[in-house]
Amino acid sequence: MINEFFEIAANLKNVPRKGWIDKLGINSPESVADHCYSTTLMAMVFSDLQKLDTKKVIKISLLHDLAESITGDLTPDDISKHEKKELEEKTIGQILNNLPEFLSKEYSILWKEYQDNQTNESKLVHEVDKLEMALQAKIYSDQGQSKEKLQSFFDSANQDIQNEELKKIFQQIFNTT
Amino acid sequence: MINEFFEIAANLKNVPRKGWIDKLGINSPESVADHCYSTTLMAMVFSDLQKLDTKKVIKISLLHDLAESITGDLTPDDISKHEKKELEEKTIGQILNNLPEFLSKEYSILWKEYQDNQTNESKLVHEVDKLEMALQAKIYSDQGQSKEKLQSFFDSANQDIQNEELKKIFQQIFNTT
Repeated sequence: MINEFFEIAANLKNVPRKGWIDKLGINSPESVADHCYSTTLMAMVFSDLQKLDTKKVIKISLLHDLAESITGDLTPDDISKHEKKELEEKTIGQILNNLPEFLSKEYSILWKEYQDNQTNESKLVHEVDKLEMALQAKIYSDQGQSKEKLQSFFDSANQDIQNEELKKIFQQIFNTT
Repeated sequence: MINEFFEIAANLKNVPRKGWIDKLGINSPESVADHCYSTTLMAMVFSDLQKLDTKKVIKISLLHDLAESITGDLTPDDISKHEKKELEEKTIGQILNNLPEFLSKEYSILWKEYQDNQTNESKLVHEVDKLEMALQAKIYSDQGQSKEKLQSFFDSANQDIQNEELKKIFQQIFNTT
């Protein structure tokens, strides 16, 4: 049922981004929905700048964390990479089953495209996902969080961001932190 | 500067949806970013079902509340409809000025299309915006909030939703509240 799909998705508002709790000790960090909104808006801008398929980019970005509405935001401390992948694949299938078949199929293919990370559009969303994390780290730093504790987030983003345009923005964010 | 655009947009994570504070007395309600994520995902589904221009729908939805990152979520108790419109138009111009001109122009036109509310795509986002509010009201009801206090949110959504497919989902949400 479509209304159930919407209700499951809305639960991302209540799923906290766990890295901020585990590493910074923040009680009420941003939600996964907060992160997904910001990531999708950023992905739209970069896709339009780089003349990629922006409809596909935005759809992938809206869907990429959807399984977390049921599994929560799992970190490597909670579960192995392989187990996480299997669990999320099973879960996204269950969630998308609430939609008419042609939509469920289309969204499932987009979700797998993100997992496989081979196309320009899926690679962009992966890197924007990391850049958005760096942006939120800068915001927490501006709010007085320890730069030392935030360093691992910047290191992780720095390592994963290869796209030249994103690298430039990452440097601007990092240099003003 | 693009990084400043992203930082302003990310502030929507910290802007609370004021209706829930004013009418339900909830201290930490959903953020405007939470609402925009959920609205955009729902708008994508309805647009794909109704074969509208989904790229346009999603972009309008991502942009429609962006001025609130600076103005906050203003209600009719705070400011007149006319003053709100003028303030938001000035503010969105300032925010979009951080982007390269061709993008700033495109997004500004999409934002105005939403304000004018004449095209099928902008009408859909307006109605999904209300349906998403009704969904959140149902979620607060499930969490124990007073149905009496929530009634005005359902009444408002019921009045504004004309699209048959959205009406059906609204009824499903309302009937399970």
